[in-house]
Amino acid sequence: MLNSPDLLTDSPEGRGTASGVRQTGRGRTRGQAKGQQTRSAIVEAALGLASHVGLEGLSIGAVAELMQMSKSGVFAHFGSREELQISVVREYHQHFEEEVFFPAVAGPRGLPRLRAMFANWMKRTSIEIEAGCIYISGAVEFDDRPGPVRDALASSVKTWLSAMNRAVVLAKKEGHLRADTDEQQLTFEIHGLILALHYEARFLKTPGSVERALAGFERIVKEHQTPDAPPAPVTQFAAQPTKPSQRP
Amino acid sequence: MLNSPDLLTDSPEGRGTASGVRQTGRGRTRGQAKGQQTRSAIVEAALGLASHVGLEGLSIGAVAELMQMSKSGVFAHFGSREELQISVVREYHQHFEEEVFFPAVAGPRGLPRLRAMFANWMKRTSIEIEAGCIYISGAVEFDDRPGPVRDALASSVKTWLSAMNRAVVLAKKEGHLRADTDEQQLTFEIHGLILALHYEARFLKTPGSVERALAGFERIVKEHQTPDAPPAPVTQFAAQPTKPSQRP
Repeated sequence: MLNSPDLLTDSPEGRGTASGVRQTGRGRTRGQAKGQQTRSAIVEAALGLASHVGLEGLSIGAVAELMQMSKSGVFAHFGSREELQISVVREYHQHFEEEVFFPAVAGPRGLPRLRAMFANWMKRTSIEIEAGCIYISGAVEFDDRPGPVRDALASSVKTWLSAMNRAVVLAKKEGHLRADTDEQQLTFEIHGLILALHYEARFLKTPGSVERALAGFERIVKEHQTPDAPPAPVTQFAAQPTKPSQRP
Repeated sequence: MLNSPDLLTDSPEGRGTASGVRQTGRGRTRGQAKGQQTRSAIVEAALGLASHVGLEGLSIGAVAELMQMSKSGVFAHFGSREELQISVVREYHQHFEEEVFFPAVAGPRGLPRLRAMFANWMKRTSIEIEAGCIYISGAVEFDDRPGPVRDALASSVKTWLSAMNRAVVLAKKEGHLRADTDEQQLTFEIHGLILALHYEARFLKTPGSVERALAGFERIVKEHQTPDAPPAPVTQFAAQPTKPSQRP
């Protein structure tokens, strides 16, 4: 499990890079810079579309219409629908890094970082209850379609799960989690809580799903923590409502 | 949560009915019986197809080709693609009942039944690692498409989650799980384990996913059980390999 070479690695400064998912290079000359800008805008629009219709729902035509560009104009930037889909996966990966991973690794190692990762992941999943997570929809769309889009998607997800795994290892090293904690087991169970949150809140519209995911996480922590573990901040998730407008 | 009126109810004889998801009526006169037989064969073929291409991938044309029938012949039995999709959901529901629910409620109440339900659900999920579960793929396909297909799918899933919920309640009544056990929380976490199993085994091809799902379940049980709880049968899942040909 998680044997992907693509690891989100956190440097001492607390900033990571996703070596496995190539970054889109940013402008060299002015002409290139302008081209990159347009390309980025197209990818951003395509990501928005994919969050609603799925990666498989993406087409050069639909993205061109959204961008008010010609199909050949969009085509010139990607060359194929597949390349557009892969670019969307990379873009999503970057968003995920920026919203979930970087803020967490900027904080202290150990259980606080693991909690921050889970809370940010939950927050991202809760936002996506409106739009859908391409890691989840993409897994269904591409699970039996081998090829570069599937590979990019699986690589990106594995990178993230490896980062979670690493956070568990560090929490053990910090003495917050017991030394006999099975990190792959913990990562599996935490992943399950996020998948259940997405399924039950988004598809079944079950109230209380966010609270249940959080309670599940704290139950897992409680079972594996040492007496040295820092306690959960009481208002951790409640203090960061993702849809404040819907709260009473 | 789980406030669906469609409950899988287990009668004293241990056989349940899914009142919410209508059963296809079975032949009244000979002509009708023949018609029903053809209809059932079409639905069965359509379910096989949907397991690979998704409910949204179903079309009257593709099913007609599979059945070596004319499109109008298939159309005569369903009237619309939507009705065909709904029939597939009902058929899947019946399969699920027969393979997951009925064998479990035939056994003793309490923790043994809960364990049997989980084991059967895992077994079904493991089989579907080859083909895909329409409860999972359908949730992604229909999460933002309101309409009768989505309703049928959500109703069927809720029915099943309610049945799991009820099994937890009975395990409390039998004194196997602690009285303060939150059944909705448990059902949520168990659902998460199944979703993680499907995601990690099917999409990421992560080895050991079945074992992790089972370990997660037993950890949940361990935390909530009373001293009166019957122990887990040691070889429970190992004794029912789903892909014996792939075992060493």
